[in-house]
Amino acid sequence: MSKDKLILVTNDDGVSAKGIHALAEVASRFGKVVVVAPDKPQSGMGHAITINHPLRLNKIDLFGEIEAYSCSGTPVDCVKLAIYEVLHRKPDLILSGVNHGENSSTNVLYSGTMSAAIEGAMEGISSIGFSLADYEPDADFSATKYYAALLIDKALNLEFSKGVCLNVNVPKLNQSEIKGFKICKQAHAFWADRFDKRLDQFGRTYFWLTGDFSDVDKRPDTDLHALKEGYISVVPTLYDLTAYNEITHFENWKL
Amino acid sequence: MSKDKLILVTNDDGVSAKGIHALAEVASRFGKVVVVAPDKPQSGMGHAITINHPLRLNKIDLFGEIEAYSCSGTPVDCVKLAIYEVLHRKPDLILSGVNHGENSSTNVLYSGTMSAAIEGAMEGISSIGFSLADYEPDADFSATKYYAALLIDKALNLEFSKGVCLNVNVPKLNQSEIKGFKICKQAHAFWADRFDKRLDQFGRTYFWLTGDFSDVDKRPDTDLHALKEGYISVVPTLYDLTAYNEITHFENWKL
Repeated sequence: MSKDKLILVTNDDGVSAKGIHALAEVASRFGKVVVVAPDKPQSGMGHAITINHPLRLNKIDLFGEIEAYSCSGTPVDCVKLAIYEVLHRKPDLILSGVNHGENSSTNVLYSGTMSAAIEGAMEGISSIGFSLADYEPDADFSATKYYAALLIDKALNLEFSKGVCLNVNVPKLNQSEIKGFKICKQAHAFWADRFDKRLDQFGRTYFWLTGDFSDVDKRPDTDLHALKEGYISVVPTLYDLTAYNEITHFENWKL
Repeated sequence: MSKDKLILVTNDDGVSAKGIHALAEVASRFGKVVVVAPDKPQSGMGHAITINHPLRLNKIDLFGEIEAYSCSGTPVDCVKLAIYEVLHRKPDLILSGVNHGENSSTNVLYSGTMSAAIEGAMEGISSIGFSLADYEPDADFSATKYYAALLIDKALNLEFSKGVCLNVNVPKLNQSEIKGFKICKQAHAFWADRFDKRLDQFGRTYFWLTGDFSDVDKRPDTDLHALKEGYISVVPTLYDLTAYNEITHFENWKL
């Protein structure tokens, strides 16, 4: 594999998360990797950008031989700063994640991991967001790394449709239990939101978001359905979200 | 007009902004209004939600007779809290804005104003985001109020397509200069991002997002094109963003 490919790696869990180290390591087998990622967890930040105050960018030494920077902003800020102030060019590929926790279905809207990939698509750059269905800080990324390598190889050699990025979710299974990739549609599933409502030590009310996820989508070709069946879901995602017309295009990749 | 309609009003500029007061006043002509809006500016927050710390909600007295609350979270947090902890039911209509500044084209992805409306659509509630192409704190909302009343009346009496909300942008013109509403598609226009890079008082570098907006979309039926021609743009917006199949549905409203 050519080493002249330039790959930007970011995430929303921050530079300390195990998932981004796993992804940067895999990416480094395919080209020159630069990491620009949040200096703190930014989960749930969606497509937020920082406009009312300045951003900081610091070179860090957490990724061995890999050039890396921490940024005080959101995942989308990281992509913008990386392109315009660190790389000074568009990379060949943007990889976001590996997120600690699933970003399937409508969670794509809340996900900082996926918003970084969507921002990449807006810039016309091939972009993939990876998430593992395991929220633990010490989650096992070995199966994800195996499959990420297969997909990155394809992504560097095949064309993305204009304005489309990929939302990849890996089930919490051993490598031998995973049945492979499946190109899917974003499920129409929703959080039945509720809040923990409690009193703090001063007797004042606070609310903390929680909820139950409800999959009301009975179609057999959704990402949630694929994950339940032991597949890695791959959803072609537009900034006009699910790219229904591109399903066939990515199926033809024969992942 | 029946007063038994329940209308939730929110925004991303915060409870002090002139735009939300204009919108709440118009809405109150059509039903019972409850305001739940951020306690500080939340522009550019996109679809961010607050998951890592608790939220506060305070009853406030800034809207005269109208029941109102400030919330420490994002616009999407406000919608969730309003439904599940304030109203304890789904309102008949969610109105977000009036934003101080345009949210046309791909800005819909960054916009807290529109993310509140999109969250409403995810909940199955008729929802509209309003923005005026004037960033000034003392912007003149009189034309916007006139046209918002016409649209709210329609919205309370006609059906929204499932999963669709409206992105309404008003040009900075006098009421007599505005040519009316036009149902449009979201323009494929992008920010050519750049950053102001400066040194702070300690000699450390900081970056501040700026940029030029570039409309590369030559189609005559985009929101940017309509605004340039003096129309109010109305884009039917999915959480799979532009709802191309619903353009006709909203044209049949004959706004």
